[in-house]
Amino acid sequence: MPTQAIPSYQRVEPGSVNIPVEDLTKIQTAKPTDIDNATEEWVSSFNKAIQSSDLAGLTDLFLPNAFWRDHLCLTWDFHTIKGTDKIHEFLKQGCRLKNIAVDRSSDFRKPVVTGFDGQGKVQGVQTFLTTESDVGRGMGVARLVETEGKLKAFTLFTSMRELKGHEEATFGRRPEGVSHGEQPGRKNWQERRIADENYEDSEPAVLILGAGQGGLTPAARLKMLGVDALIIDRNERVGDNWRQRYHQLVLHDPVWYDHLPYINFPANWPIFTPKDKLAEFFETYAKLLELNVWTSTTIKESHWDKSKGQWTVVLERKKKDGTTETRTIHPKHIIQATGHSGEKDFPSHIPGISDFKGDRLCHSSEFTGADLNGKGKKAIVVGCCNSGHDIAQDFYEKGYDVTMIQRSSTCVISSRAILEIGLAGLYDEQGPPVEDADVAFWSIPSSVLKSIQVDVTATQNKHDAKVLEGLEKAGFKLDQGPDNSGLFMKYFQRGGGYYIDVGASQLIADGKIKIKQGQEIAEVLPHGMKFADGSELPADEIIFATGYKNMRTQARTIFGDEIADSVKDVWGFDEEGEVRTMWRKSGHPGFWFFGGNLALCRYWSRMIALQIKALEEGICKYDDR
Amino acid sequence: MPTQAIPSYQRVEPGSVNIPVEDLTKIQTAKPTDIDNATEEWVSSFNKAIQSSDLAGLTDLFLPNAFWRDHLCLTWDFHTIKGTDKIHEFLKQGCRLKNIAVDRSSDFRKPVVTGFDGQGKVQGVQTFLTTESDVGRGMGVARLVETEGKLKAFTLFTSMRELKGHEEATFGRRPEGVSHGEQPGRKNWQERRIADENYEDSEPAVLILGAGQGGLTPAARLKMLGVDALIIDRNERVGDNWRQRYHQLVLHDPVWYDHLPYINFPANWPIFTPKDKLAEFFETYAKLLELNVWTSTTIKESHWDKSKGQWTVVLERKKKDGTTETRTIHPKHIIQATGHSGEKDFPSHIPGISDFKGDRLCHSSEFTGADLNGKGKKAIVVGCCNSGHDIAQDFYEKGYDVTMIQRSSTCVISSRAILEIGLAGLYDEQGPPVEDADVAFWSIPSSVLKSIQVDVTATQNKHDAKVLEGLEKAGFKLDQGPDNSGLFMKYFQRGGGYYIDVGASQLIADGKIKIKQGQEIAEVLPHGMKFADGSELPADEIIFATGYKNMRTQARTIFGDEIADSVKDVWGFDEEGEVRTMWRKSGHPGFWFFGGNLALCRYWSRMIALQIKALEEGICKYDDR
Repeated sequence: MPTQAIPSYQRVEPGSVNIPVEDLTKIQTAKPTDIDNATEEWVSSFNKAIQSSDLAGLTDLFLPNAFWRDHLCLTWDFHTIKGTDKIHEFLKQGCRLKNIAVDRSSDFRKPVVTGFDGQGKVQGVQTFLTTESDVGRGMGVARLVETEGKLKAFTLFTSMRELKGHEEATFGRRPEGVSHGEQPGRKNWQERRIADENYEDSEPAVLILGAGQGGLTPAARLKMLGVDALIIDRNERVGDNWRQRYHQLVLHDPVWYDHLPYINFPANWPIFTPKDKLAEFFETYAKLLELNVWTSTTIKESHWDKSKGQWTVVLERKKKDGTTETRTIHPKHIIQATGHSGEKDFPSHIPGISDFKGDRLCHSSEFTGADLNGKGKKAIVVGCCNSGHDIAQDFYEKGYDVTMIQRSSTCVISSRAILEIGLAGLYDEQGPPVEDADVAFWSIPSSVLKSIQVDVTATQNKHDAKVLEGLEKAGFKLDQGPDNSGLFMKYFQRGGGYYIDVGASQLIADGKIKIKQGQEIAEVLPHGMKFADGSELPADEIIFATGYKNMRTQARTIFGDEIADSVKDVWGFDEEGEVRTMWRKSGHPGFWFFGGNLALCRYWSRMIALQIKALEEGICKYDDR
Repeated sequence: MPTQAIPSYQRVEPGSVNIPVEDLTKIQTAKPTDIDNATEEWVSSFNKAIQSSDLAGLTDLFLPNAFWRDHLCLTWDFHTIKGTDKIHEFLKQGCRLKNIAVDRSSDFRKPVVTGFDGQGKVQGVQTFLTTESDVGRGMGVARLVETEGKLKAFTLFTSMRELKGHEEATFGRRPEGVSHGEQPGRKNWQERRIADENYEDSEPAVLILGAGQGGLTPAARLKMLGVDALIIDRNERVGDNWRQRYHQLVLHDPVWYDHLPYINFPANWPIFTPKDKLAEFFETYAKLLELNVWTSTTIKESHWDKSKGQWTVVLERKKKDGTTETRTIHPKHIIQATGHSGEKDFPSHIPGISDFKGDRLCHSSEFTGADLNGKGKKAIVVGCCNSGHDIAQDFYEKGYDVTMIQRSSTCVISSRAILEIGLAGLYDEQGPPVEDADVAFWSIPSSVLKSIQVDVTATQNKHDAKVLEGLEKAGFKLDQGPDNSGLFMKYFQRGGGYYIDVGASQLIADGKIKIKQGQEIAEVLPHGMKFADGSELPADEIIFATGYKNMRTQARTIFGDEIADSVKDVWGFDEEGEVRTMWRKSGHPGFWFFGGNLALCRYWSRMIALQIKALEEGICKYDDR
């Protein structure tokens, strides 16, 4: 089916699977009773079955259409296995999971009766688990429903947290900080730190490209596991990737969703983090955790030696004194963390785009901010996602006459609705510890999440009804994401296509920001823009908030065709509903993609670090299942 | 009694009270039973008594020699009132405390049976309390013993945590970070932050001198209460006060004791923090909490206007571009946080001290570190406390021939003994949240703490027996602090006089660091030192680790005689066992002293911030009881 035939809101990353919406209405369930004993019984039967390899007995503990989602407890990859037949099939090759137990260590973790669907109609027992595999310990979540007087699993989630014998060097395993007693010729911390960061006598095992959240979080996790990682970034300072973005940028996600591993944002941190404040936090984060970062550094050459299983990478590092140092290193792993999106998607093919005579024409990534006094000036913003809206609002607030060009449709959910409906109870001020929230979130198989999100989106739309109506009246075209599952799923399946409304929607509804809808751009004029329908708009400034290409495009630019051809496309779901290629084996040994928003980086950084640590320690091989 | 007659170990800050060791053996107590009901009953009777002003009924709930320690719930000062007569007397003037309740919110807080003395012989019920006064809410601790079948208070502690209606802007009261909706002409966070920090359109209500822990922590607490504070520091960077100290400096207190308010050290922070790492944390701390700090800034002039109740302060600020800005501000409060010690105590009166011809002669505060190759060089370190030992160890490890000059005696406890005995259970990896530990710690009246510390010190000495014996054999003179109460009390009562052993003691015992004991210095020779007994020691380097003067000396230097004469001496105990003049009203309106180690700053920063906030809001006046 040609792409054109799929409506925009249904579009997913090319080659990825538009995961179906799970039909939860079919689940027949009674309200469970005596949940503590019943849960313990289920867990005990489960353990008996896996420990005696009784696969028939095991699958009998699941509903026929149940899901088992696993992150590194069963294989060295991420899987969501659906249905008892497939679970049976999957485990015939062996079961590395050895044991689970009910986790009662907090009210959030212990068994509770709750709704599993978006409307609370499917009631069952949810409990956190501790898990143990042959090599690791982890956490999990079981969702059990009572059917024919017995609990059966609707979903099971198992997720590794640590490798046995290689636990994190935190809390009880923190460093001493000093060697008491006699130490002739000792260096102090500062001297050791400088030597470490400059790799005076050593080389990093892992090279990470990019010092944003995608680079910092795996570096932090690896550090705690004793795997030496060097982050490089082409910018002068950690955080510059955020500092250099547009003037008004403030995160659209709230603080409770955004904590990074090991250092939560402080108690007075604003709900929505401004870009420069985030940049400052990133700088601080690297310092406090002692991450090794080389800024103003780029890759000049890179080569993978298959036989040695290592890279040769030539780095060019601009030093503060103006000199440039060239250094060759031999990491075993490279993590590309250059942004979950790839290169900017700038429509340079549009006729006339190079001949614009106005004040400014650029991609949103190059937009620094509207002029303080925009009175009498005209601006066009192409693209109607977060950046496009923020930029249009900035123009409007500075006095510009601004028009947004919306070519297809946009999923709009207000920031308030996301806080009060989408994230409420999980990522909020009264929520559980953020890493528990993550386990709860990732325990939901993608097709089940999609089903829940259909209901959540409908509720959010009701909350936002007035402004959405205003938008439509103003000619703005709305969608509800793939299969009406809203913003979250649009993010996972397409990486964009939405606006978290922080005020621009009302400006559009009020006609303060104008909308030109449904027209492709035919031509950029010297002082304006011409559309497919022949209409024209004058402009002193044109900003293309047209997004980014697939992350793989950047792999091609940096590492060349050989690497880019051997990895798979990034982002969007595979047929199981796990995100493709990111955070997991890329298809090329020693090459990893890493990124996503802060919350994704928080959870998945542990996963990539465990995979790399296991490889480094010889606990697994790259081709191991 | 002339000072000379008091043995060194008994010496306290001049004018302060050598608080007696409470005799806990006199307390007759039965093992309490049914502690939950009995505790609730005691609390209920207590509330009834204070609410009906039944002072006889109230004092009947206390042992005759009981203590009531209060921090801001009863008065706008700190008091430890001993004995039912005095409690009765004290409350006759009114009781601002309105209510207490048993705090069962955690295992650490809820009523438990525990020992109140150092040996666990006095058993009773300890419970955390929540407290409410006319203007504030707080926490407390009651220690109740069963006597004649009823619980009676042995100690009661009440401590304010927040002012009603002026709660901290944290968690549920955190800022939004962005104003959603239309905001023409809006500034972004970075612009607002720069304007705030430079006081472009405003003035600080509080000026804080010194950006160490003593300046940063009150600034942080005040920020959360919405009181604008400017910290100034003469150094170029926040943390330089630590960076500039000697090369090998590592905190002698462990991480669990050292957390600052709002931002705990991360989970991988070393147990003992190296100086440069602490400096980095301080810089980070100011940034993350958005504290206003002007570095390279000094006070040129200051004047207190009594009628207006405000200061006029002329500041000189060296800017990064090399220019100097002069700025006059009018704060209502000045907090001197220039170090709990005052100016360096350098014995410039010693004959010949200006004519030393060796490589280096300086105070320990100016010592940057021993030369990398000290072979063949001779060093003398005068003074045997923490700095003196660290410096001597540094010299030894770099190959110097080093002698320490011990004029009186030193209290030596190993770092290990402090961790495993002194702080165990309270400030350790498995301990309660640090602010709970603080409440538990400060709930103990000083004379009771002293009694406990006598036992703790004896246990620590047993732990350290071997190295202590070695020290004495080497001619090193040991003491156990005032009344044998050890290091903690020596810190509070004298501000020094101890060594937390991190290795130098063994070097002394082994003769690797030499000791010259009991001799005053008669003269500094061009290449050595001459002692009262006529003996001489050659030296290429002489370091005076002779400590610091009273904090008041620095007030005199900076603010002049008028201010210095109107404030009281700082540090050491008052007759109630509360620390003098520090953290509380100094005797001069609008002038405060603040400082102490990180742990002290953590607890007391809240207290000073509440006092200042109450004054700023008109909740109390300076002369209010």
